[in-house]
Amino acid sequence: MNTLKKNLSELARLETHTYEKDFLLTWEKSDDEIRALALASEALSELHRAKKSLRAFKSGLAISIFRDNSTRTRFSFASAVNALGLGLSELDEQKSQVAHGETVRETANMISFMAEVIGIRDDMYLGEGNAYMREVARAVQEGSEGGVLHQRPSIVNLQCDVDHPTQTMADLVHLKAHFGSLEGLRGKKIAMSWAYSPSYGKPLSVPQGIIGLLTRFGMNVVLAHPEGYGLIPEVVDLAQRNSAKSGGSFAVAPSMEEAFRDADVVYPKSWAPFGVMQRRTPLLKEGNREALKELEKECLSNNARFKAWECDSAKMRLTRGGKALYMHCLPADISGVSCAQGEVSAEVFEQYRIATYREASYKPFVIAAMILMSRFKNYTAQLRQMAKD
Amino acid sequence: MNTLKKNLSELARLETHTYEKDFLLTWEKSDDEIRALALASEALSELHRAKKSLRAFKSGLAISIFRDNSTRTRFSFASAVNALGLGLSELDEQKSQVAHGETVRETANMISFMAEVIGIRDDMYLGEGNAYMREVARAVQEGSEGGVLHQRPSIVNLQCDVDHPTQTMADLVHLKAHFGSLEGLRGKKIAMSWAYSPSYGKPLSVPQGIIGLLTRFGMNVVLAHPEGYGLIPEVVDLAQRNSAKSGGSFAVAPSMEEAFRDADVVYPKSWAPFGVMQRRTPLLKEGNREALKELEKECLSNNARFKAWECDSAKMRLTRGGKALYMHCLPADISGVSCAQGEVSAEVFEQYRIATYREASYKPFVIAAMILMSRFKNYTAQLRQMAKD
Amino acid sequence: MNTLKKNLSELARLETHTYEKDFLLTWEKSDDEIRALALASEALSELHRAKKSLRAFKSGLAISIFRDNSTRTRFSFASAVNALGLGLSELDEQKSQVAHGETVRETANMISFMAEVIGIRDDMYLGEGNAYMREVARAVQEGSEGGVLHQRPSIVNLQCDVDHPTQTMADLVHLKAHFGSLEGLRGKKIAMSWAYSPSYGKPLSVPQGIIGLLTRFGMNVVLAHPEGYGLIPEVVDLAQRNSAKSGGSFAVAPSMEEAFRDADVVYPKSWAPFGVMQRRTPLLKEGNREALKELEKECLSNNARFKAWECDSAKMRLTRGGKALYMHCLPADISGVSCAQGEVSAEVFEQYRIATYREASYKPFVIAAMILMSRFKNYTAQLRQMAKD
Repeated sequence: MNTLKKNLSELARLETHTYEKDFLLTWEKSDDEIRALALASEALSELHRAKKSLRAFKSGLAISIFRDNSTRTRFSFASAVNALGLGLSELDEQKSQVAHGETVRETANMISFMAEVIGIRDDMYLGEGNAYMREVARAVQEGSEGGVLHQRPSIVNLQCDVDHPTQTMADLVHLKAHFGSLEGLRGKKIAMSWAYSPSYGKPLSVPQGIIGLLTRFGMNVVLAHPEGYGLIPEVVDLAQRNSAKSGGSFAVAPSMEEAFRDADVVYPKSWAPFGVMQRRTPLLKEGNREALKELEKECLSNNARFKAWECDSAKMRLTRGGKALYMHCLPADISGVSCAQGEVSAEVFEQYRIATYREASYKPFVIAAMILMSRFKNYTAQLRQMAKD
Repeated sequence: MNTLKKNLSELARLETHTYEKDFLLTWEKSDDEIRALALASEALSELHRAKKSLRAFKSGLAISIFRDNSTRTRFSFASAVNALGLGLSELDEQKSQVAHGETVRETANMISFMAEVIGIRDDMYLGEGNAYMREVARAVQEGSEGGVLHQRPSIVNLQCDVDHPTQTMADLVHLKAHFGSLEGLRGKKIAMSWAYSPSYGKPLSVPQGIIGLLTRFGMNVVLAHPEGYGLIPEVVDLAQRNSAKSGGSFAVAPSMEEAFRDADVVYPKSWAPFGVMQRRTPLLKEGNREALKELEKECLSNNARFKAWECDSAKMRLTRGGKALYMHCLPADISGVSCAQGEVSAEVFEQYRIATYREASYKPFVIAAMILMSRFKNYTAQLRQMAKD
Repeated sequence: MNTLKKNLSELARLETHTYEKDFLLTWEKSDDEIRALALASEALSELHRAKKSLRAFKSGLAISIFRDNSTRTRFSFASAVNALGLGLSELDEQKSQVAHGETVRETANMISFMAEVIGIRDDMYLGEGNAYMREVARAVQEGSEGGVLHQRPSIVNLQCDVDHPTQTMADLVHLKAHFGSLEGLRGKKIAMSWAYSPSYGKPLSVPQGIIGLLTRFGMNVVLAHPEGYGLIPEVVDLAQRNSAKSGGSFAVAPSMEEAFRDADVVYPKSWAPFGVMQRRTPLLKEGNREALKELEKECLSNNARFKAWECDSAKMRLTRGGKALYMHCLPADISGVSCAQGEVSAEVFEQYRIATYREASYKPFVIAAMILMSRFKNYTAQLRQMAKD
């Protein structure tokens, strides 16, 4: 618990304004706030390991809205809110009347009368997910100001079309543990690389979130992808600006090999081409199955040209000392295990399997920290109290 | 908290016998019990606004059975039971074996071993929903007397074919706030009017519940609907008797305009004709899709004759000073917003939008009050305790 | 509460090693452990009846994985974990990404970061269900040893292809109450008999669990079924060995009548022939609907030859004094009630209806006891504390 004590002291020195604020994009948070979030996440994890109760609420409700399938984030959110003492109500859009044309604005208020937090996953439609979260936020703001809601619940982004902050913050805590400190990230090279997958239409939020976050810590971030698989231009620009400011670098490479060369960390992961996502969104909205099938076929056959973009032992040997840390948000498409050919060879994945589990293990604590920092003005006092009990 | 103190004193003077009783129809409850329920709901709302914990149970389970889609009532129930400290288990009739021919009697006991309360929504079948609730009540009564259940859970009607007491009690609390007191309702005119909707088959429970409840407070209640859209005759008779007793009045009007004239409150809402519901029930039971489609077509084309039954600014001008309170149980069919033409014009709805949200906001507190009054002999003491903590 | 005191004293004298252990098969537990589990279940039931709180956890999560429909076990598990103070997260394999080819190993860890217990029902595939539970157990063991999980959750078998320990332990507690003590079971005859049902493919876990458990208490266990409806041979052998050791007996009879003769207890219940289940498993896996339909037809027509295997009044008259205790895990196929002809006549079932409800009522307490014994080293102290509060 010595680390805990040190972390809590450091936490107290940071300037944060997260009380009653939403968590929608990491780049809307100050450096101090990101550092505080990492520290609070680590503190909660350490307290949990020490079998301390993380209960901060006597009662209260957390709402989750999942507009896409999810196992990991669903359970991470459920674990986090339960540990804090909140109940959980899931809005299932198939079951509820939201699917029947209700306006978002109204529903957001109807489900929030006693809500402390609303976690939302909406990553299917480019240009929509983050906008939806802001629409919900505006609605509960209005409800709160109009006296309808006794409290304005905070919104937590559980993955949208732009960012996946609970994942990338877990990744950051994982890297912090790997390199010993956030300062340890400075000068380290990370390769965020596209990888081949036999599926298509995977969100762009993880690579975008990674380049948007890690360029803030002086890392040398290299983004690699085949032609036509670029990310949202605004986020690429942001990464550029971030790295200039933090004293790191940001570059785009045309091959996994080039990105991996001398890398300290590699993050090979598939995503859909930006252009395909743009064409896909209106088709999904209008439910045009024929055109979606056609688009899928076209995209998969295009994907198939890049089967060599697999993270295998040969490519890992290009990394610094052949020993780069392999990262993945899971589930990975593992060649010969979960598919014939995929993002990573079975050999490489098996070597880092437990490490990827550990990477994921920070997520519930990151979510709990986001909620704590947004619902308690003096969240450090809450953490100190947990340590005492 | 002065209102709270006053409310709790008033509550202590009322004679109620709600302990271990179900809440199935407002007209099965005495005037004192209805008044107490309104007071307890207000007290819980005020305590929640003051950030007091409403936790009354250390542990315990609430069960919900939804036999129809629901967002608002589902979340209101979840919010209420969570606030009181109960866990929630939802019986999903698609997922569970109830759909496979199990008798209600047995299932009711099997899910109730540790249940404090069972909330049921069953509003699809005329002549069935309320009967089903009573069947469940008899089953847990038998289980309790036979030593199978250590406690007999209370049944709360979350909407049936006859009444929607959690909605109409929220409506009553809303009116009480609007007019300053229940006494303030005396002599006020409310227009409960049918309105056009492009859908069909909406339950009759809200208009029935409204005329069954508000005629008890000396209001002048006018029910308006096109020919053939009458309600269950027994409830219309009840409204007549109630108003005679309370010193108010009850009348049926042939047009929205007539009902709105000099009204203090208007509640324009669509519902299916009683006769259609009677024909629909056997078709739903036998799953006769062809005949249901045929009936829907017939009904929609009949509905279309009454598109003029829309609550618009012109009709609102007929009300007392043009300033009647507009009410709706939500979601409303809003012309040009959620449908081409519907129950209410966008202009009128927008003016009262936040007010309808506030109307809905009482529902979780009404449900919590129903549970509290049914599970605690001295529920006033529970409320006093919450105020202290 | 005198029984409680006596039970807790007896409990303290038993030698058990259940801390941090899974509960997968009753025959993996020692006699002392089975006795302790029965005592703890009774204690929890008695405490609940006395309105004592069973809360043992401040917070924490229970996970359930249901790979088959379930109402009773689902609610029993929900009731048990709620009573102990745990939150519940259900892994719905339709909703989650498990259905999309994720490895069990990884998912098991991803859902377990804060889990105390994982309840699993997987009874559809012969040779698969219990194996799946062990795979999950190995996965969380690995995750725990690798530092991914701060605690290794315990696995509770909520029914598999081999055993249904939460059911058979509830049955045992029911018999203990019926005969006054576990010693009272000695020399009593129980007929575990196949019975006709108009459905097919029912799991073998209940009859297997019953002969595997009750042969340990000196009972004379008779298993009866038509030719071709035998159970897994290993479990039949186990029953043989158990009875030899316990001083009871085990026999297989060719007719319900022979099994019922002078029986003190009868348990008539349908199950699928072992051979059919073996043929069905690969068809289910490959999703071969045609072949499954063919197999169902064949099996139902074979079943139909044994319609006489119904527990009716005439057969009940063959039992000891015509007064054997009738048992069933519910729901029963009741002739003329839930089907045209089934496992039991309406007359016999009605006579024992409430008794079968009571039999089922022990299940949530059995599950709570399993969790308590597996998560608390000194679970007796926990029970004593509950009695005090």
